Amino acid sequence: MNEDDLIRWLKRRARGQGGERIGDDAAILPAGGPWVTTVDCQIENVHFFSGTDPAQVARRLLAVNLSDLAAMGAEPAYAFLALSAPSSFDFKRFFEGFLEGCEAYRVELSGGDLSTQPTVTAALTLIGKPFPDGRFLERGGARPGHRLWLGGSVGESAVGLALIRLGACLRENRVDLTALGRLGPEASATAAQCVMRHLRPEPQLELGRRLATTRRQGAAIDISDGLAKDVHRLCRASGIGAVIEADALPEPAGWSELEPLVDEPWLHSALGGGEDYVLCFTLPAREEAPSELGARPIGEICRGHRVMLRQRGQLRELPPSGWDHLARDRGPHLDG
Amino acid sequence: MNEDDLIRWLKRRARGQGGERIGDDAAILPAGGPWVTTVDCQIENVHFFSGTDPAQVARRLLAVNLSDLAAMGAEPAYAFLALSAPSSFDFKRFFEGFLEGCEAYRVELSGGDLSTQPTVTAALTLIGKPFPDGRFLERGGARPGHRLWLGGSVGESAVGLALIRLGACLRENRVDLTALGRLGPEASATAAQCVMRHLRPEPQLELGRRLATTRRQGAAIDISDGLAKDVHRLCRASGIGAVIEADALPEPAGWSELEPLVDEPWLHSALGGGEDYVLCFTLPAREEAPSELGARPIGEICRGHRVMLRQRGQLRELPPSGWDHLARDRGPHLDG
Repeated sequence: MNEDDLIRWLKRRARGQGGERIGDDAAILPAGGPWVTTVDCQIENVHFFSGTDPAQVARRLLAVNLSDLAAMGAEPAYAFLALSAPSSFDFKRFFEGFLEGCEAYRVELSGGDLSTQPTVTAALTLIGKPFPDGRFLERGGARPGHRLWLGGSVGESAVGLALIRLGACLRENRVDLTALGRLGPEASATAAQCVMRHLRPEPQLELGRRLATTRRQGAAIDISDGLAKDVHRLCRASGIGAVIEADALPEPAGWSELEPLVDEPWLHSALGGGEDYVLCFTLPAREEAPSELGARPIGEICRGHRVMLRQRGQLRELPPSGWDHLARDRGPHLDG
Repeated sequence: MNEDDLIRWLKRRARGQGGERIGDDAAILPAGGPWVTTVDCQIENVHFFSGTDPAQVARRLLAVNLSDLAAMGAEPAYAFLALSAPSSFDFKRFFEGFLEGCEAYRVELSGGDLSTQPTVTAALTLIGKPFPDGRFLERGGARPGHRLWLGGSVGESAVGLALIRLGACLRENRVDLTALGRLGPEASATAAQCVMRHLRPEPQLELGRRLATTRRQGAAIDISDGLAKDVHRLCRASGIGAVIEADALPEPAGWSELEPLVDEPWLHSALGGGEDYVLCFTLPAREEAPSELGARPIGEICRGHRVMLRQRGQLRELPPSGWDHLARDRGPHLDG
């Protein structure tokens, strides 16, 4: 199938999902706005292992980008995809996975670019708009006295990656842990959850919508490069400091069996792992966040510019020890 | 320099050019529109040779994307860049080149994504808006009786690439043809022009603006994958056919000396070379296009769905023999 044939197929397949906009030199989008726009990549051997199901790569690409829109409190609208891969790559399977995701999250695939290169590289641009009666969220809105919240647990995705390196995998939508040896039921359930969190992140769009439509103050960011690093970013943007409670980041059930496999303390993964794709946000102290959407308080915002960790009653400074995208070249890592 | 340092440097460097929007999870763009959006890539060893000056890669990336906006008759507004490269890559030099281009074309670099991978891969999303009193151009507006126009010459970029393969290169803004052996003055001038056309395409934004603001009928496309292929696309989108006059694609001066080097007839490069980045458009027969911007008539639109070439009085069907992005994996080619 050549490029024009693939584009014709795609226009048909994506009819009603933006496909009618595909095929000119650029796509025309209606007047409106304000808009938010974000770009993120998934690259073979950086963000996923060679040989990963193309549909799986596509869904993850969409999810990690949608997480940025969730952190802005924006409603997804349009997607533009730049995809380059070897000519043997199953482009159709990629697009099937991508369009399923687009349908679930009501995104229209409105244009893109295809080319061949040895390494599968997908860059996605998403354009979002405000929810009705919503305001965009930003990193710079945290104030002393706010509480710091997380939209879910962190650390599981990094542990999931470590387990995948040890041979855990997904077979027909079920996690196969055989390669890890015997595990008790709690450790097995946690391990399976970690693998799924890594491979199938779920963007917190509903939490973003709730925050954007109900609160009047606060900051938000999504945790892609590790809690420590992303809280540092939020604090820097807001000109404040923060205290994180280690007790708010508890070990999951069965961790004592998994720690020897992963060879890192739980708190390292929770603070520095990354690829969690949960929202981190602040609210005035008297406001509660929706716990039914996974929100839990993990600390508070204070004056100054330092990020501290309170553990067993002791305060210590927390370095921004998340992943640095430019510091190293190596296999799939914890990159957002 | 790590990622956060680079982004801080970039925010400062791009101040007044969109830099104030960089650094949140997504960039907020003002309400307005309608908008046009396009995405295009430049990939090492696909669109440019390994070792090319990063500033040069950046300028070319911007130019080929702007050519898509020119073909839509849109005014450039915002850029979003996904850049992945080895950690040894000179990211700063890339951004210096990119921002120089942004300044020249009044584009704001408003966000992006950075990561490391072995192959330099840059995907650019551009968002444009209508010119004041302008209408967007589209591929589907060609009608029987229109004349077919080109915004400049085609074929030179493909010849330039062939000459670069033979050792021609750019040194401090001058084309060095030493590797090609002795050439007469006309052939030298043509060869230098071809190399520049390949390395430094110039998007026809002013021609796009003129067409968008003055004409009421017609179609437009930019020639990125070869004249034959892109005219086929325009015809398919408009539901019509076309006749191209071979005499309107004359050999450049000194061609007899260059043809043995390039080893392809001129007309092959002109029809199938690609990466020309000139506009191809149609106008009602009585309307003239601005010749001071390089526009020249090359044929006419007719009923049916075939694209024909008239050469020495003979009509023959012209296959869409431009470059197919998915058909082959090999070194730098003629890809748009």
